[in-house]
Amino acid sequence: MDRIEILSNHFNNELISNPTLATNQNNNQNNNNQINNNIVTTNILNNLEQKKLTNKDLEYLTDLLIGHPDELLRSQREKIVEALKDPIFQPQLYASIPEQRELAQKRLLKISEAQCLKLSEVISNYKRFSMFHGLLVYSDMSLAVKSAVHWGLFGASIVCLGSEQHRKYYDAIDNCEIRGCFALTELGHGSNVRGVETIAEYDPEQRQFVIHTPSDTAQKIWIGNAAIYATYATVFANLHLNGQDYGLHPFMVPLRDPKTMQLLPGITAADNGPKIGLNGVDNGRLWFKQVRIPKENILNKFGDVSDDGTYSTPIKNPNVRFNSMLEALIGGRVSVSNMANSCSKMGLSIAVHYACTRRQFGPSGQKEQLLMEYPSHQRRLIPLIASAYAYQISINYITSKFQNKTEKDARDVFMLACGFKAAVTWNRVKTLQTCREACGGMGLAASNRIGLLRADSDVDLTYEGDNTVLMQAVAKALLVEFRSYFTGSKRITGMLSYTYSKGHIGIFLRNKNFFTKRLSSETHLMDADMLLDAFIYREFKLLRILIKSLRDKMKSDKMTSLQAWNHCSDLIQQLSLAYVERVTIEKFLEEIQQSPPSTKPILTSLCILYELTKIEEDMGWFLSNKYFAPVKAQAIRNAINKVCYSLRDHALPLVKAFDIPSQFINTPIQGDWVSHFSNPNNY
Amino acid sequence: MDRIEILSNHFNNELISNPTLATNQNNNQNNNNQINNNIVTTNILNNLEQKKLTNKDLEYLTDLLIGHPDELLRSQREKIVEALKDPIFQPQLYASIPEQRELAQKRLLKISEAQCLKLSEVISNYKRFSMFHGLLVYSDMSLAVKSAVHWGLFGASIVCLGSEQHRKYYDAIDNCEIRGCFALTELGHGSNVRGVETIAEYDPEQRQFVIHTPSDTAQKIWIGNAAIYATYATVFANLHLNGQDYGLHPFMVPLRDPKTMQLLPGITAADNGPKIGLNGVDNGRLWFKQVRIPKENILNKFGDVSDDGTYSTPIKNPNVRFNSMLEALIGGRVSVSNMANSCSKMGLSIAVHYACTRRQFGPSGQKEQLLMEYPSHQRRLIPLIASAYAYQISINYITSKFQNKTEKDARDVFMLACGFKAAVTWNRVKTLQTCREACGGMGLAASNRIGLLRADSDVDLTYEGDNTVLMQAVAKALLVEFRSYFTGSKRITGMLSYTYSKGHIGIFLRNKNFFTKRLSSETHLMDADMLLDAFIYREFKLLRILIKSLRDKMKSDKMTSLQAWNHCSDLIQQLSLAYVERVTIEKFLEEIQQSPPSTKPILTSLCILYELTKIEEDMGWFLSNKYFAPVKAQAIRNAINKVCYSLRDHALPLVKAFDIPSQFINTPIQGDWVSHFSNPNNY
Repeated sequence: MDRIEILSNHFNNELISNPTLATNQNNNQNNNNQINNNIVTTNILNNLEQKKLTNKDLEYLTDLLIGHPDELLRSQREKIVEALKDPIFQPQLYASIPEQRELAQKRLLKISEAQCLKLSEVISNYKRFSMFHGLLVYSDMSLAVKSAVHWGLFGASIVCLGSEQHRKYYDAIDNCEIRGCFALTELGHGSNVRGVETIAEYDPEQRQFVIHTPSDTAQKIWIGNAAIYATYATVFANLHLNGQDYGLHPFMVPLRDPKTMQLLPGITAADNGPKIGLNGVDNGRLWFKQVRIPKENILNKFGDVSDDGTYSTPIKNPNVRFNSMLEALIGGRVSVSNMANSCSKMGLSIAVHYACTRRQFGPSGQKEQLLMEYPSHQRRLIPLIASAYAYQISINYITSKFQNKTEKDARDVFMLACGFKAAVTWNRVKTLQTCREACGGMGLAASNRIGLLRADSDVDLTYEGDNTVLMQAVAKALLVEFRSYFTGSKRITGMLSYTYSKGHIGIFLRNKNFFTKRLSSETHLMDADMLLDAFIYREFKLLRILIKSLRDKMKSDKMTSLQAWNHCSDLIQQLSLAYVERVTIEKFLEEIQQSPPSTKPILTSLCILYELTKIEEDMGWFLSNKYFAPVKAQAIRNAINKVCYSLRDHALPLVKAFDIPSQFINTPIQGDWVSHFSNPNNY
Repeated sequence: MDRIEILSNHFNNELISNPTLATNQNNNQNNNNQINNNIVTTNILNNLEQKKLTNKDLEYLTDLLIGHPDELLRSQREKIVEALKDPIFQPQLYASIPEQRELAQKRLLKISEAQCLKLSEVISNYKRFSMFHGLLVYSDMSLAVKSAVHWGLFGASIVCLGSEQHRKYYDAIDNCEIRGCFALTELGHGSNVRGVETIAEYDPEQRQFVIHTPSDTAQKIWIGNAAIYATYATVFANLHLNGQDYGLHPFMVPLRDPKTMQLLPGITAADNGPKIGLNGVDNGRLWFKQVRIPKENILNKFGDVSDDGTYSTPIKNPNVRFNSMLEALIGGRVSVSNMANSCSKMGLSIAVHYACTRRQFGPSGQKEQLLMEYPSHQRRLIPLIASAYAYQISINYITSKFQNKTEKDARDVFMLACGFKAAVTWNRVKTLQTCREACGGMGLAASNRIGLLRADSDVDLTYEGDNTVLMQAVAKALLVEFRSYFTGSKRITGMLSYTYSKGHIGIFLRNKNFFTKRLSSETHLMDADMLLDAFIYREFKLLRILIKSLRDKMKSDKMTSLQAWNHCSDLIQQLSLAYVERVTIEKFLEEIQQSPPSTKPILTSLCILYELTKIEEDMGWFLSNKYFAPVKAQAIRNAINKVCYSLRDHALPLVKAFDIPSQFINTPIQGDWVSHFSNPNNY
């Protein structure tokens, strides 16, 4: 018997209407073939209400969320899930901070033994890399981050910034004989990495680099694995050759004797101490006092030094060179998005399971109502399910694009990686906070994990680039693309071509009238494709407003370009988010087009819900820009309520389709929580 | 030399422009007397830019935030601050969960020794009670909550629900010989307390009540202090007399032998285990197996039993009786608001100090810019400073109103306590999250406390009433008031009279035109009084829309009143928040009217900033209801930017005026953080 079913018996003798049970029984496919690819009417809602998803539908959704894996990737996923069945991967809630660190390290070694990753394939099979970390999150965010630091930041820096001569380290990294960290950020220099002060001076006589920390603000800080466990670091330092500064370059610096774990001469490490979460990761600070490393330890893909001290580089422009180095490591951001969305999915799985068993208030004299039966509860949780689906589709798209990256779409990948990292992690904050609140007191129990996930993942807003800084990078890239398009200096093939061509021919003006003039009912809002036009319109208009504002501030207000940029910060953030949301919808619609007829209604309704919710969140903008008539605001709100209501019975199947490994669907409130708490030894 | 000044020298040799230093030097009061009480023009911004706040101004602001204390209350505050100087009240970041609990208990006993509170004055000097807990937060949220449970929930239940015969316990509670907890919530019954199952059956032969837990869903859960330390509980149970159920009543039940701390016969206690924060509080679960207590242990103010088993009560209607019991304890919610605002103030103090010393990016070749110089950073933090001021003024007002409560304003106090508890705790979530993000990686260090505060305070969204449920209670009360006003059945003297009379005579229509028709510049938006009209308009209109929607759903859609209510949940939440924000502004304006001329500009600009920000947050509503012309949206955004910019140099003095005890302004990033982190032993 299903655990939810058992639980429901604590409150009454009837079975609660359980959509997952129903999926097994109800295989009569309604004829949904008549639904067009994109244009969908409110019939969709009626269909949803009547139709249960079949097991085949759910399997399709699961596959879609994993990114339609081929057989190899599917077997790799199964291998990871199997490895994570070891009891060591179960949460230990009373562990002190030192114990959490030890535990995370043991887990890292355990998962390394299972050989689920290969450094040599960290880019060529990036899908596996990202999937791997998305799965580790379900066990322990600290483990996932430690692994991402070791294989992702440290490992990938060797693969992407090093050369053939560094291949010899790959095996030792894969089996964790070498344990790495990544030392870029300094106390005085975070987002502005160009300010980094650490020096690497070449000594031609000894054929060595001398790594040195010239000041207290130059100490490397927040370096994951550095306080205790790392034996090597990739250190970014300014290359000094014959008195000249060639800018930042990466160096492999041994930190500790791997046998004794003693720090090597000249190296000081300090503990970053307790954090607000993620305490399984031993973040630390590092100082280098004239530390000598062999010449071969420069990661030399983008800049090298000959024995006699002559500098060579394939990229002459120092700014372009530095950006190329950082862009080579952009994959980390994609993986951060995937990890963040795993957190969202986990939170939603927990909150929805609980909402389908917890009763509160109701008609007097009758049994109380399930939380999921309340429109307010549907309104809180179901749009977040839609966001989790929407962002997962985009993350899969970006992952695939990154894995197969060509020079042509480098800027696209850059914008996507930055923009989605920010948007997905902000969405995670909102999702976990809402899920925690939706579970009331139960959301506070560590055993129910939502709050721990929130605390452990909060860093993702800041690391791999502060979100607001990343959004500025996106806006800058959009401006460059825009200029290229309109000056005709470059043919646009990237993400923007669709938008701009559409925007340029003024289609949004037609749609604007369409929106402004038509009915106040919500029926005609159930068109995912038409809603997309609102997002294209917004992005295009924001871009033009930003350009005008920058120009005005420089011309009329006599600001420098930097001042003008800083004074447009709210526009910049709006624009970048508009870009991310527009891409999200486009990718969702492409996914729907490829999906089988029986899953089209559910996917379309999720897409529409995402679109309507995002319009509602920015209603002030759409109304003040007269994209909608004022009467539409209420119609949009009503439409959201209707879609949420139609999806209420699908909420549980939809989160089950996340396919979180069963060994991690074991928080008390996901199961028979009355029995659980009946035992005084449980918590 | 100021610590901020020292720190700035790490980055450059000039002094950074430090507004706090300037306040000591600049005593030339500009002539601000010409500013009218409420109507203020943009001149205010020019004045703000030129004028530094004097020490006297800052002292006034501090006094205002404490609620204009009399000499007695001031000395009581000093006594608490002095007591909190004991080193035991300093954070211990590496403490394990058992250690955190022990530490919080030791702190509770220590603060009890200082005799800063008296149970007999818990209501009559409620200002002190609330102030006390607001101050404890700066040391340890767990301590504050344990104290609030002991003196507030447990203690106040004896004072407010008991009678003369329970006075004998007061001293033992004050000196913590008796350590209390408050057992209302059950596993199956949270917000819906009427569902509570625990039974208290009277046995006339023994003159005893028999307390019993009839099922697993009836276990008391999340009871603070119950897992380890409490020796007594106030238990809510259904009073059974001669086979009849008289509904919930409170009983004092001994739990543990105070000497041995062994559980007494028939009592089972279980640990609620690790939580996502607040781990110094030992939340637990309780079961009672035919536990006998003396007849005198019924807290008998609202219902009593004679020796022979006859029931008596001053309130015949069981619903009214039950509500009266809960309303007697409403003070807890006021105190929760105050504690939450302490968290916001602490977070802001930390983030603003850091923003005034941390540099990032800047014009090439020049020193980097302070975070506080960025418009985006001003935009993030300064509106939150305004909210902290705005809510503190209202909290002080409610505290005072509660302390001097008469029967006439019982409903006002109820609405205020519920509504502000929800709004202030939601504002706290936003404030702490923003502050944490504004500090980047430093916001993640436990030593910088923002994240710990967030984790420790998260429960305030849920306890003392789930926020969304409280907002429903507010909306219900507003509907009752509204009906009374318009049927003329009752003269309205409460909070609504102003709104309704204003709304009723249609003043909002005039103002609506005013807003719609006039300029798109931001100049005329700098009128705090005129902005208030927008809030009155919104509240009044939402109320009318809600009434109409409820009626339509019942009449046209044939819903029951409960269904209709549930389907209006978004309107209900909107209305209640609109009420809270309107009251906040009214109280802020009253405060400004009473303030000396030299502080009027700064207070007015904070009030305007609060108003504009709240309008911006709900711009979609104002535009779709055509209160503003679309062109106003951008003007409002620009106005917010301007106010924030004008306040940038005042941010630090404004958070210094919070007057957080100096022993708690000691996180690394509030001081010379470069020196701090130069020592590898620090973190």
